[in-house]
Amino acid sequence: MKIIAYADGGRSRLAVVTSPGRALAVADVAPDLPDDLGAFLELPDELARLRTAVGGRQGKLDLAALTLLPFLGRANAFWALALNFKSHIEETGLTTSREFPHMFLRTAASYVGPGQPILAPPPDTARAFDYEGELGVVIGRAGRYIPVERALEHVAGYTCINEGSVREYQIQNRQFGLGKNFEGSGAYGPWLMTADEFGDPSTSRVRTRLNGVVRQDAPLDDMLFGVAQVVSYLSEGYRLRPGDMIAMGTPGALKPAPDDAEGLDLSRQYGPFPTPGLAHMRPGDVVEVEIDRLGVLSNPVRADQPRTYAA
Amino acid sequence: MKIIAYADGGRSRLAVVTSPGRALAVADVAPDLPDDLGAFLELPDELARLRTAVGGRQGKLDLAALTLLPFLGRANAFWALALNFKSHIEETGLTTSREFPHMFLRTAASYVGPGQPILAPPPDTARAFDYEGELGVVIGRAGRYIPVERALEHVAGYTCINEGSVREYQIQNRQFGLGKNFEGSGAYGPWLMTADEFGDPSTSRVRTRLNGVVRQDAPLDDMLFGVAQVVSYLSEGYRLRPGDMIAMGTPGALKPAPDDAEGLDLSRQYGPFPTPGLAHMRPGDVVEVEIDRLGVLSNPVRADQPRTYAA
Repeated sequence: MKIIAYADGGRSRLAVVTSPGRALAVADVAPDLPDDLGAFLELPDELARLRTAVGGRQGKLDLAALTLLPFLGRANAFWALALNFKSHIEETGLTTSREFPHMFLRTAASYVGPGQPILAPPPDTARAFDYEGELGVVIGRAGRYIPVERALEHVAGYTCINEGSVREYQIQNRQFGLGKNFEGSGAYGPWLMTADEFGDPSTSRVRTRLNGVVRQDAPLDDMLFGVAQVVSYLSEGYRLRPGDMIAMGTPGALKPAPDDAEGLDLSRQYGPFPTPGLAHMRPGDVVEVEIDRLGVLSNPVRADQPRTYAA
Repeated sequence: MKIIAYADGGRSRLAVVTSPGRALAVADVAPDLPDDLGAFLELPDELARLRTAVGGRQGKLDLAALTLLPFLGRANAFWALALNFKSHIEETGLTTSREFPHMFLRTAASYVGPGQPILAPPPDTARAFDYEGELGVVIGRAGRYIPVERALEHVAGYTCINEGSVREYQIQNRQFGLGKNFEGSGAYGPWLMTADEFGDPSTSRVRTRLNGVVRQDAPLDDMLFGVAQVVSYLSEGYRLRPGDMIAMGTPGALKPAPDDAEGLDLSRQYGPFPTPGLAHMRPGDVVEVEIDRLGVLSNPVRADQPRTYAA
């Protein structure tokens, strides 16, 4: 099952994608179910109830005509992993613990929905604005001290994430802080795909394209810490909440082709780790994160507001 | 004006403290105002409207009988500053940028309300569970690229924060991550005091007591980055939201008195920076964060659930 959130006259509503391009509003078949995904995921047997309510019905909503929203709203936690792909660790030359995952948080305001513009900072603020294609994990069942072998039972499903990052700010001090939390700098979607439909994450791949050029392409089993390990680790600290999301980390840059002028020209890069095959996101670009069997998250990149006081 | 949130039959409601020990439910005098503080702060002239609605009335609610809640619920951002007091930088021996504030995020689930138990991790999980008394800043007016000289216009008010930290987890990797986000490991309150009532933060002091012993006591002008600078800095990255909170960092430990057995005995400390005058929080303790003119945040410390799988 693929669940989306869409704008309906100022409200956020849930729908189920019933066929390519078509979605069925949850309110039309199960008006008792909440339109907030976190509240929905807190209900017992919520996915089974929704599946029954949808039945074999086809949706009347035209997916292409909807404004899709970030389906988690203000979740309790948007976790992200740093340095979780061996290929990305190598390209940065940074060190990370092999025993404990390297984790930080993002805010709801740092993410936009699928198809919505990702915002590039004005050039006088920052230029090293980078995509990070990642697998997103959405918690469905609360839990504490979850053993690794039970961890996947607590996952509602998966999504694609562009964990957009502003490198100049990320390295201003030792915590990533603001550099990982610029306004609308990242995105997730196109939907929450339930775990039963996606299957085993480690047998899939993540791929990032900038303007059609593949810039990242890696198997998800290149991760240092897998989904179950990270879910179990976080639950040592707090009771995971339905709707909490984890961005599983990004792979390194794909080697540029011999005719790839942009990927080969390191002088166009402003970040701390100039890398062959990396290209910053700029206004006018289109960036896509694809995860096999899951779908494609596509966002245009637009210039954020100029550096002028706005109350 | 002092605003609190309290539990009313499973709902969170706002009230105004009208005299010591008494509060007036906002719903009783202004039923059109929302009970969510973030939504309330987004209204134009909301504080003036509430002040008018309260008038000179006395509240009927007995403050001591209420269950107080964290008044921000799931705000967009709970920011915190690392290493922002010169005395704390010295005691840790850590380095920090003098140019950019050192910032990270916490989740809503990591905070409890005033008077509610702060949760100490079980000893087989972590022992270096530390108080951090801090000034909390609550954003009242949205804004982007806010100049330092206009920054305080965007502040609704202030609160006391205990930014409780689990040191063993905080140092597992380079980002603080989970160590700053244990379940109910911190608290804020006792209320949101509006900026007009609190006055200039830099002329106040923050003080932390553990079981009545003063463990931290520092002037707020010992901060490396002041409130206006931090508000302005964050607004370079994103449009600050009403209800966003900033914990301004904690001072160093007060030198222990000659008869302070616990403060002098470094062998009782499990953290990475054994410090004379520091004492970890343990079940049965009472911890208080006091900010002059603002109030006292008091919390008992209780043992969190044992290390057993709980779905």
